[in-house]
Amino acid sequence: MLITTRRHFIAAGAAALSHAMIARVASAQTPPASAGPVDPALIDDLVAANRILVDQGVVDGYGHVSVRHPGDPQRYLMSRSIAPELVTAADIMEYDLDSTAVDPRGRTSYLERFIHGEIYRVRPDVKAIVHNHSPSVIPFGVSTVPLKPIYHMSAFLGGGVPVFDIKAAAGGPTDMLVRTPALGRALATTLGARPVALMRGHGCVVVAPAIQMTVFRSVYTEMNARLQAQAMALGPVTYLDDEEARLAGASVGGTVVRPWELWRKKALAR
Amino acid sequence: MLITTRRHFIAAGAAALSHAMIARVASAQTPPASAGPVDPALIDDLVAANRILVDQGVVDGYGHVSVRHPGDPQRYLMSRSIAPELVTAADIMEYDLDSTAVDPRGRTSYLERFIHGEIYRVRPDVKAIVHNHSPSVIPFGVSTVPLKPIYHMSAFLGGGVPVFDIKAAAGGPTDMLVRTPALGRALATTLGARPVALMRGHGCVVVAPAIQMTVFRSVYTEMNARLQAQAMALGPVTYLDDEEARLAGASVGGTVVRPWELWRKKALAR
Amino acid sequence: MLITTRRHFIAAGAAALSHAMIARVASAQTPPASAGPVDPALIDDLVAANRILVDQGVVDGYGHVSVRHPGDPQRYLMSRSIAPELVTAADIMEYDLDSTAVDPRGRTSYLERFIHGEIYRVRPDVKAIVHNHSPSVIPFGVSTVPLKPIYHMSAFLGGGVPVFDIKAAAGGPTDMLVRTPALGRALATTLGARPVALMRGHGCVVVAPAIQMTVFRSVYTEMNARLQAQAMALGPVTYLDDEEARLAGASVGGTVVRPWELWRKKALAR
Amino acid sequence: MLITTRRHFIAAGAAALSHAMIARVASAQTPPASAGPVDPALIDDLVAANRILVDQGVVDGYGHVSVRHPGDPQRYLMSRSIAPELVTAADIMEYDLDSTAVDPRGRTSYLERFIHGEIYRVRPDVKAIVHNHSPSVIPFGVSTVPLKPIYHMSAFLGGGVPVFDIKAAAGGPTDMLVRTPALGRALATTLGARPVALMRGHGCVVVAPAIQMTVFRSVYTEMNARLQAQAMALGPVTYLDDEEARLAGASVGGTVVRPWELWRKKALAR
Repeated sequence: MLITTRRHFIAAGAAALSHAMIARVASAQTPPASAGPVDPALIDDLVAANRILVDQGVVDGYGHVSVRHPGDPQRYLMSRSIAPELVTAADIMEYDLDSTAVDPRGRTSYLERFIHGEIYRVRPDVKAIVHNHSPSVIPFGVSTVPLKPIYHMSAFLGGGVPVFDIKAAAGGPTDMLVRTPALGRALATTLGARPVALMRGHGCVVVAPAIQMTVFRSVYTEMNARLQAQAMALGPVTYLDDEEARLAGASVGGTVVRPWELWRKKALAR
Repeated sequence: MLITTRRHFIAAGAAALSHAMIARVASAQTPPASAGPVDPALIDDLVAANRILVDQGVVDGYGHVSVRHPGDPQRYLMSRSIAPELVTAADIMEYDLDSTAVDPRGRTSYLERFIHGEIYRVRPDVKAIVHNHSPSVIPFGVSTVPLKPIYHMSAFLGGGVPVFDIKAAAGGPTDMLVRTPALGRALATTLGARPVALMRGHGCVVVAPAIQMTVFRSVYTEMNARLQAQAMALGPVTYLDDEEARLAGASVGGTVVRPWELWRKKALAR
Repeated sequence: MLITTRRHFIAAGAAALSHAMIARVASAQTPPASAGPVDPALIDDLVAANRILVDQGVVDGYGHVSVRHPGDPQRYLMSRSIAPELVTAADIMEYDLDSTAVDPRGRTSYLERFIHGEIYRVRPDVKAIVHNHSPSVIPFGVSTVPLKPIYHMSAFLGGGVPVFDIKAAAGGPTDMLVRTPALGRALATTLGARPVALMRGHGCVVVAPAIQMTVFRSVYTEMNARLQAQAMALGPVTYLDDEEARLAGASVGGTVVRPWELWRKKALAR
Repeated sequence: MLITTRRHFIAAGAAALSHAMIARVASAQTPPASAGPVDPALIDDLVAANRILVDQGVVDGYGHVSVRHPGDPQRYLMSRSIAPELVTAADIMEYDLDSTAVDPRGRTSYLERFIHGEIYRVRPDVKAIVHNHSPSVIPFGVSTVPLKPIYHMSAFLGGGVPVFDIKAAAGGPTDMLVRTPALGRALATTLGARPVALMRGHGCVVVAPAIQMTVFRSVYTEMNARLQAQAMALGPVTYLDDEEARLAGASVGGTVVRPWELWRKKALAR
């Protein structure tokens, strides 16, 4: 029956199907092995990240954040399917890159976990990923106006912010959810080497080489969208030029620990 | 004198008058019988719903939420006339579909309770109703711009969002309040089979097959209005197409428990 | 010297000078007599009003609210010059309609107390007055767009909202403050019989026959301004018509106790 | 090697180089002497200022505020490089006007401290400086629309608000940070005798003769930007004229203690 399902999917013409997916279907039979325990401080950072994203208005009752397993690049860590504000260390689950849970114990997984697995698969530089419905970002995902860096805090947007249209990726209307490896892979392709991709009619995905920076970028992507819309209403806007974006991105990237310490302290104090 | 009042009303040309209304006037003489006690957990949900709508910025000192009596579809439950944030289990009253209180004991009822009774009467699928003055929704009720689903979270808007104009329904200027069964019936007619209707110069009404979903839809109707206005300011907007709205509505509808658990926990912790 | 000052003022051509003002100057020599103690519940209401206006975003560190003395229409009560959020019962002072403090005891008075005294003088129906810099209202005071009732909650705006231009009233540039009886009188003239007047480059003044309603109107003037601006950005707006505004104003006016009970409880709990 | 560095810098064509900078380079060898302890109440004011700017939405995890040393105009006080919300008295460091720390003890300094030193150097009237990324101000820094005083609370903007373009100052793309004395000097030149200068793609700088007023001006610069954008969306705007701005600036300036007392009390109560 699994084979039938797979054949049907192929018949539907999904271009992204691959050997990796076949492997995934097979691996669903046996839970993958754990890559072993991780430093509790990293789990605390992941819990903090969930709460910080709430505090900063980037996620509400939906959205998720993951971190790559420090001991095995083929594994990542993410909460079971609950609202980010409720996440505690006990809710963190381990997944392989097919987004199969190592030890589900009856816990529900986020439907869209394939966003995480498929990006980790093709972006070895990425160590943490946020998927959200960041409010100010939504309008940019449904318009033809590109998101551009309005100030140094969002200089990381300088390489361009692509929009993932799931209808084009799936070849027709869907429920808008990245609920298959093929869709996750298509999103990863749209993202390319960049830090942020918008998702039309849905939200966005944000990646970085560290969880602190992924959270930082999520916060300032929301802020950039809000401020860019306000600036465009005033008239023509001068964005950071490419070189400014590159230089400022590097400089500001080195200061991420400053807000992170504040945010983490407040998030874990609750 | 009741008859005189009724005749005067008929003379004024209200088209919606019917046998049902005559029955209502008669029934006002004797309080209707109670359909019996309900599970305290449902009352808690109703209390939580009131507070959640405050927490989410959907209601302020005004607005009301009701739930259909699980033991009798001819009855519904709603708070006495107080601000939603102050509602406790002791404030919940039972009404019949004429919106007559079963056991008033001197408690004041919301003037606009007929919104609830008349919708429950014609919409057997509806189990909970919210009436609010949700801020971002107000501008759409007084403009010619239709509210449309901008993302999957508000996919339930896909079937269209009608605007109820009380002046047309009443045949002339009113105090804008749905303070009679006839006006409640006219609003129910405008709503039709849909989940949301805007009310020009007033607010909106939101319905669903469960209280959790009615609250969810209220929250994301507000959010959609806010984000749609922002998106329109950027330029042309790509909304969910009909099939996307249908599919996403079904999928997201299945996840409502996720934010509900968060919202309820916080609402009842106070 | 007082006479000289007065003559200089007359020479400057202030049209609003009158016998009342001459009386005021004279009365400044001797503090006016108190109209006697008032019900502590009214003082509590006045303290609550200050805090509610902060909670609702109508005032920040500035703004003031007064209530007419229930025992003597020639007196009013208002806090000494401190931020509204800090006001306690001990800060409430009594003024006559010249805005002279009955018992100053070294306490500083708001520079713009003449707004209150001069409106109470010509509006016997008014029992409470708020002056604020309500944020969403400011843009309407500096534009040519009239504030109009967008929904039933702000139906009281239906009689029109005039804009007071202090430059025209004073015959030239000022420091924008209503710091003299003459300017207070000019503002009262602009207000006329209405509940709200905007003040160009400054804020607004809101009046009503009871303190609960003055607070209510202040809150929903702010809300109307915010929602009207949003609605106008969408396109043409249908406002309440005159009769709707009149009817809704009367109906909603009867429900003011509902939010007031909520607001007062929260304000005094701190 | 220091000389080489300096020569290289000169060769790069920085027009702002001067004897003062040469002195700074030399003084970097030996930490400058302290101007001695200051009244703890001033330190408390500086700590309060950091927190107030957070409470008022003017700074987030970034931004800094300094105060000139009351005992020596050649020294200023500012926190070590941490988020403003976390600043306590123990974090306050002393700097000379070259922005060299008197007693670093391994503590990190803000990269952009030269904003402070270079403005204090050329503006003897300035006793406190805020640098922030105040959200509503950012759009004005990247547009061609000048910030103008919309009401009396922001009358201090009446002399005009220049925009500092770091690309023009540096002669090409930078990382947007004022990380050298030369760039600090160029910013000070753009500021001139005014209280506020915007920084393109970055934020703004606000100065005043007292820390209370610098905080006040920061808060109402943010508010003016927000309200001006709203007013411009309505249509043509009437700003304060030059004389109104001058008169209102003087009058309102005398009332700064009113919000300050409120803000300080709340900030230090945490």
